[in-house]
Amino acid sequence: MIPLNTVYRHTFSFSQNDVILFAQVSGDNNPLHLDADFATTTAFKRPIIHGALASSVFSKIMGTEFPGFGSIYMKQVSEYKRPMFVDMEYEAVFTIMSINPDKHTAEISTEIFDVSTGKKTTDGMAVIMNKEAF
Amino acid sequence: MIPLNTVYRHTFSFSQNDVILFAQVSGDNNPLHLDADFATTTAFKRPIIHGALASSVFSKIMGTEFPGFGSIYMKQVSEYKRPMFVDMEYEAVFTIMSINPDKHTAEISTEIFDVSTGKKTTDGMAVIMNKEAF
Repeated sequence: MIPLNTVYRHTFSFSQNDVILFAQVSGDNNPLHLDADFATTTAFKRPIIHGALASSVFSKIMGTEFPGFGSIYMKQVSEYKRPMFVDMEYEAVFTIMSINPDKHTAEISTEIFDVSTGKKTTDGMAVIMNKEAF
Repeated sequence: MIPLNTVYRHTFSFSQNDVILFAQVSGDNNPLHLDADFATTTAFKRPIIHGALASSVFSKIMGTEFPGFGSIYMKQVSEYKRPMFVDMEYEAVFTIMSINPDKHTAEISTEIFDVSTGKKTTDGMAVIMNKEAF
């Protein structure tokens, strides 16, 4: 069983190839993510990764590492506060905020930080059901 | 400019190959989505698609069709209320709930319905910035 306030950290980055693959799988070929010339016309000046690709790290970690295999995803809130770029190092931080032992669910805060600046790029929370963990 | 209360609908389905590709791109290889034998041990009895893959349809539509190219994703809330399966027809429904013309943002409700039963599988909302649309 995973106790309240447990924190789990995961460092990651995405490549431009990851962005291209995510655009193919999702069908989201917004030029903001794929077209460097278009991106120079935006406030970001260079392509940013899809927010939904950034959030996929939450799905990966909660479905495979923490709380682990067999997790059922009930809710995700993601607030994209700052742009994220390819080939940069980010850290996802998961904290168990509350547990409902009757339902085997937990509220988990899900945050992403830019490792080089320490600034939060993504804020959010999830609700996860996992009978072994909660 | 897109007026308040505008509704946009998009019908879609995912194949098992889409699920496998999403598992590869995201790294989320939770057997709930990939392993039919494991899935028989769950309440769902067969593999379900990743919630984050279901939500990727929100990213696709809002980034490419409605409100369209150049949209900046500021927030997504997704509540996974019922399991979703491969090769089933679903409808995503987007409704403009409020507009902030100063910030060029809108709150958009994002829902997914099972076309065969009419039941809602996913509930949620997004905040999108798009200077041409709002």
